[in-house]
Amino acid sequence: MSANALPHVVIVGGGFAGLWATRALARDRVRITLIDRRNHHLFQPLLYQVATAGLSAPDIAAPLRHILRGQRNVEVRLGEVTAIDADARTVALAGDDGADDSRIGYDYLLLASGATHAYFGNDAWAEHAPGLKSLDDALGIRRRVLMAFERAEAADDPAERAAWLDFAVVGGGPTGVELAGTLAEIARHTLKDEFRHIDPARARVRLIEAGPRVLASFPPELSDNARLKLEKLGVEVVTGHAVETIDGDGYVLAGERVPARTVLWAAGVAASPLGALLDVPRDRAGRVRVEADLGVPGRPEVLVAGDLASIEQDGRPVPGVAPAAKQMGAHAARAIRARLAGRPAPPFRYRDMGNLATIGRMAAVVDLHGFKLKGLLAWWFWLWVHVLFLIGFRNRLLVLINWAWAYWSYQRHARIILDDHDDESGDAAAP
Amino acid sequence: MSANALPHVVIVGGGFAGLWATRALARDRVRITLIDRRNHHLFQPLLYQVATAGLSAPDIAAPLRHILRGQRNVEVRLGEVTAIDADARTVALAGDDGADDSRIGYDYLLLASGATHAYFGNDAWAEHAPGLKSLDDALGIRRRVLMAFERAEAADDPAERAAWLDFAVVGGGPTGVELAGTLAEIARHTLKDEFRHIDPARARVRLIEAGPRVLASFPPELSDNARLKLEKLGVEVVTGHAVETIDGDGYVLAGERVPARTVLWAAGVAASPLGALLDVPRDRAGRVRVEADLGVPGRPEVLVAGDLASIEQDGRPVPGVAPAAKQMGAHAARAIRARLAGRPAPPFRYRDMGNLATIGRMAAVVDLHGFKLKGLLAWWFWLWVHVLFLIGFRNRLLVLINWAWAYWSYQRHARIILDDHDDESGDAAAP
Repeated sequence: MSANALPHVVIVGGGFAGLWATRALARDRVRITLIDRRNHHLFQPLLYQVATAGLSAPDIAAPLRHILRGQRNVEVRLGEVTAIDADARTVALAGDDGADDSRIGYDYLLLASGATHAYFGNDAWAEHAPGLKSLDDALGIRRRVLMAFERAEAADDPAERAAWLDFAVVGGGPTGVELAGTLAEIARHTLKDEFRHIDPARARVRLIEAGPRVLASFPPELSDNARLKLEKLGVEVVTGHAVETIDGDGYVLAGERVPARTVLWAAGVAASPLGALLDVPRDRAGRVRVEADLGVPGRPEVLVAGDLASIEQDGRPVPGVAPAAKQMGAHAARAIRARLAGRPAPPFRYRDMGNLATIGRMAAVVDLHGFKLKGLLAWWFWLWVHVLFLIGFRNRLLVLINWAWAYWSYQRHARIILDDHDDESGDAAAP
Repeated sequence: MSANALPHVVIVGGGFAGLWATRALARDRVRITLIDRRNHHLFQPLLYQVATAGLSAPDIAAPLRHILRGQRNVEVRLGEVTAIDADARTVALAGDDGADDSRIGYDYLLLASGATHAYFGNDAWAEHAPGLKSLDDALGIRRRVLMAFERAEAADDPAERAAWLDFAVVGGGPTGVELAGTLAEIARHTLKDEFRHIDPARARVRLIEAGPRVLASFPPELSDNARLKLEKLGVEVVTGHAVETIDGDGYVLAGERVPARTVLWAAGVAASPLGALLDVPRDRAGRVRVEADLGVPGRPEVLVAGDLASIEQDGRPVPGVAPAAKQMGAHAARAIRARLAGRPAPPFRYRDMGNLATIGRMAAVVDLHGFKLKGLLAWWFWLWVHVLFLIGFRNRLLVLINWAWAYWSYQRHARIILDDHDDESGDAAAP
């Protein structure tokens, strides 16, 4: 095939960065191999809705093959990259059965494998306080939360019952705020009248943030508003204290042991381990320190984009948010195009579109370059932006209908407990 | 609580029979405990749509607690019944962690735990040819089918590739026909343009029926029509031959070994093992032979309904279909009411509402007491009946919209591969 003579671009990761790069190269004379461990692109900003049973997994995910079916210069490979030989310009790929390792050569390599949870050296906490990065994580959290109420209902011992009704979310960033707000809503409203031995509304939902305020990336005024809104929803917000330990019985905070059977982790993010396969400088979180055009120092044919890339702009790190990942993906495509043409690539510039976070029913905070919104108006803005960006998913309308119904009725349609597969979720090999 | 003085009705199983019985007793002066291993009622007639990625799991399931939240005389317990002491009138219940066994006393016991797969003594086939009874089964089958195309795409060896593109469905009843028709549609239409090394449309989908015709419970004329429609969809229909063996490499049929990596089982149904916990006569499939009013011989306080009950009417067995289960559930409630009043219960009469099966895109067969429909009209009738009976699920409209979209676009929105949890699905303990 003559296509084999074209430069080969290997893109690892079908998230926002990898997918946007792939699409941006649609009309270039290259052949692209897009590698992902999972068969789907995930709209991560709504993942907390799957974890809290408001949306089904397929509502926020679409098969990569389907999204890219019309782009003839791309081939999608399901598998996990296990090694990179930067001198030979090959990546090693393990199939999902582990057995059939194969090597794929590249002319250009874009690493966009994102981020995973970080427990700051306390990896033993992972088992007791799951984080939220994949659909399998979300289904595991959904199961834990729903089962906690079931176990509280079945418990005879008052102390055990109380422990099952004690929920903690560690980390007061947008994900932590969203999870805590929604948990409180589930306890106060969704489960009303469904139990006979417990009152779910008496569940304690705690949001624990080590820093001085929640939503630290927002102006203090919006942090204060978010805290107020959370407290109104019934969330107990604790700031200025870090969790000291987490185990199967609960956690320790400010020297006090709290028996809580459900602890969720939204505190730390570490770069995907793929960055470590390259012999290049990385930051504390394991992200690859890229050059101004997203190239890797000394290896211009290797680029990094999205949450795996560490880059500063005007003295501040570019944040690990979806718009930044999309912009980096598109820029990496431009940089590869420039290299193919023998031109220097322009430096990456992050265009900050603003910052949004939702808190719960009809409340959100929005910061658009100093223009601040909060409350209902901010929530409508948040909803509009999120539905708008569910692009490429045919089910935007369905997601809207689901939400309309959920908000009107306080119900959450995806409250289905599937079999436990916690052990296999997270960083398992190909899905 | 004075409620404890009321007669205690324990109902095991929240399927059609158990749920209909529970609802029928809403205004009776009894207290009811409804026990299920899963937290949801499942609309089983559409389970094949979840297996083939047309619907999400929550589209066809609703939490039992939610359905029954307004019925104050019922308590829902999540757990698995592990023993029945009919003399002491207690059931033993294992919680989902296995540890906290508890005993629940009853005045009346209704067993409605349904059916499971039967491999006719070939239990080793179960691993290679999964059946379809629960949502976890459906998600496991979805994963197998989608992964088969992925593995075919990744395979270098032509024989291996062909084996991954060879699908067999064993059993030509309604479930087998639905699965085979939908698999053919996925291969021919849904996956169009998505692969680069294989042509999914060249996949072989075989439907294997040991008897002389598919849909044996329908008039021969409709069986012929179903076969024709299946063949038009691209399904190879084999009748009059039973599969001789099934293993990890394929199956043997009429002495010939067929390398096929995906074999689905829709051939045999056995009663839930709960029937064996009672010391009463059972039929070959393990179903409890009940008396005319659905009571167990010699134990009038124990009743059986749904797929677990074996009863004949006019010399023919009452079929294991949803309408029969609902009718039996409602009748069991009447029988319990009669016993409470010291009256004899009337005999159960099955009202046959007709027989429907769908074949694939816009084709179905309908038999209403000799009034036969086929083709598009039958399909519309089938759709109308199924959407109508999704009662108690708020998402009837959403399911319709999903279908409308799927039929219009040939797309299936739930093509998301989640982590493998085959090993834990099926007959595991509480979900």
